[in-house]
Amino acid sequence: MTTPKPPATEQPTLRREAAPTIRDVARLADVSIGTVSKALNANGRLSAETRSKVIRVAAEIGYRPNDLAQSLHRSKSMTVGIISNDSFGRFTLPIVEALEQQLADEGIAIFMCNATDDPARERQHIDQLLGKRIDGLVVTSRRADERSPVGPLPAGLPVIYVYSQPADHAALSLVPDDEGGARLAIQHLIDGGRRRIAHITGPERFEAVRLRHRGYANALSEAGLKARASDYLSGAWSEQWGREAVAKLFDGKAQVPDGLFCGNDQIGRGAIDALRERGIAVPESVAVVGFDNWNIMTEAARPPLSSVDMNLSALGREAGRMLIAMIDGERAAGTRRLPCTLIVRESSHPVTRQPGQL
Amino acid sequence: MTTPKPPATEQPTLRREAAPTIRDVARLADVSIGTVSKALNANGRLSAETRSKVIRVAAEIGYRPNDLAQSLHRSKSMTVGIISNDSFGRFTLPIVEALEQQLADEGIAIFMCNATDDPARERQHIDQLLGKRIDGLVVTSRRADERSPVGPLPAGLPVIYVYSQPADHAALSLVPDDEGGARLAIQHLIDGGRRRIAHITGPERFEAVRLRHRGYANALSEAGLKARASDYLSGAWSEQWGREAVAKLFDGKAQVPDGLFCGNDQIGRGAIDALRERGIAVPESVAVVGFDNWNIMTEAARPPLSSVDMNLSALGREAGRMLIAMIDGERAAGTRRLPCTLIVRESSHPVTRQPGQL
Repeated sequence: MTTPKPPATEQPTLRREAAPTIRDVARLADVSIGTVSKALNANGRLSAETRSKVIRVAAEIGYRPNDLAQSLHRSKSMTVGIISNDSFGRFTLPIVEALEQQLADEGIAIFMCNATDDPARERQHIDQLLGKRIDGLVVTSRRADERSPVGPLPAGLPVIYVYSQPADHAALSLVPDDEGGARLAIQHLIDGGRRRIAHITGPERFEAVRLRHRGYANALSEAGLKARASDYLSGAWSEQWGREAVAKLFDGKAQVPDGLFCGNDQIGRGAIDALRERGIAVPESVAVVGFDNWNIMTEAARPPLSSVDMNLSALGREAGRMLIAMIDGERAAGTRRLPCTLIVRESSHPVTRQPGQL
Repeated sequence: MTTPKPPATEQPTLRREAAPTIRDVARLADVSIGTVSKALNANGRLSAETRSKVIRVAAEIGYRPNDLAQSLHRSKSMTVGIISNDSFGRFTLPIVEALEQQLADEGIAIFMCNATDDPARERQHIDQLLGKRIDGLVVTSRRADERSPVGPLPAGLPVIYVYSQPADHAALSLVPDDEGGARLAIQHLIDGGRRRIAHITGPERFEAVRLRHRGYANALSEAGLKARASDYLSGAWSEQWGREAVAKLFDGKAQVPDGLFCGNDQIGRGAIDALRERGIAVPESVAVVGFDNWNIMTEAARPPLSSVDMNLSALGREAGRMLIAMIDGERAAGTRRLPCTLIVRESSHPVTRQPGQL
């Protein structure tokens, strides 16, 4: 850093908002904030071209490199905590990995804490994290229940709930758009000519189950199709439940579905196995779509299973981006639902047209 | 802390070894080091009974609480880093969670870094961790290849490789005993009366594949049974490979195996599905045992799949215990292989006697 440091006083917020920020430089130079930092501090590996572009943009808009130190880096520990009330698993890991990568680019390191559903342990973790003077906190959890707010926390500490349903609805929460994901699946099945679509899903205590069911029912209704009560089956998140539900829907029935929308890929895999064992052709007689796009399940299914992808990495990157902005002084609140994507495989062919991508 | 602090000089190693340590108190009082610390510092939640037991033991052996501050806590950042060269997944997560819990009990927080197989990114992470003055480093990775040592690192920084095969054989590495796990499976199949046992496994570039194959071959040989070359099939870690391998072993063959030892549970699941579709009864005609004890696979299989459990949580706890000891001044090196456990389910019944537990 070649610029002399100003006295270590707090800059009023208005001052920071009036002056160009490192974010402005990053946006105009079309690079990351980390790249701007490296270019202006003459450290890190960068091409001469990128470095000179950043320096040119910074000069043009009158950005002073020590704004970075003032607004983001100074008096910061450059650490954040991630706490889970359950454990880090299949759903949270892609989120945490993307978040970690995003933050590492800014020189921010992550403390990972697992509270294993024990409030005393969670409090112990939070106290420990506060003792480390973390700059921000990310909370993930199982999505079955609303989780009580972590706290008490110091006023102004940025907190983001990710893949987590905080009971405090003013808190900032990033979750996948389950209802939108279900709509993608149903629209795809309708586009493929399916007219009686059943929904086999998990336990109703999960918000995701309720939202996906709503997306299913609304998409059918908007297409002028009927959502029969007997075509909605809620059970466990397992292959076995997928097999049992197919038995309920197909065995000894005169009228059977021509499409199945399954609440997760395990249910979808079980349903495909059960249809196969009954000699019912997938996708010719019944099209099947799952949810989660979990390759372990989708690729082992015969035929491979179409599925809704929750774009968890994108969720993690967005959480990282927002956390950095919040550490930098921005404020945000409320629940944000990020789009899902439908991945079409053989289990729901043929389609007459490609589904719209959100 | 009520005891006055001595001058902040380094204690010679012999001094520490001569005096009773917090570890001695913990061992004699049959509690964790964290519990001793809490009891003697009068913080944390403890029963009065436990607290008084710890204080009594400490007094009996002449342990002074400030030894803890000198040997473990003082001049320490109370942070460690975990770095993966791949990503945190199904195998590393149980390890990391157990490690995290062990360290949290000692007030040590974990930085989690994912280097995504990029050496430059790994170096960036290591530099960042060293900048945070971590007290120790845990390295996990995919186990296909030996990984090059992380480094350069400061002399004396405790480093443990877990579920990871360092090219530097002097480094401390904790891995599951794959060969021993395979022996458990084969012994169990032999005990159940199986005489021709095939081995369907993953790619040979994985050390685990080579070690499990060795355990298979040695256990057969010691029982006076033949390991036929045609009964060893190496392929992918997938259900599809399990199905294909069953086709190779059974279709159009006069002599077929009566036992299958599968290198992972996906292969085992695929094998069971393929046997089922051929009308070959599991376990009556063919017993099947997998590896990993991954409930998603073992429980969905019909019948449920017996499997070797690598005890990854125990591996993580041991890594935590050893890291704490190393931060406390102990030194350790070499590869340590921790025992696996066989979990018997319906796919390998009947057994004539319970297998020995390592």
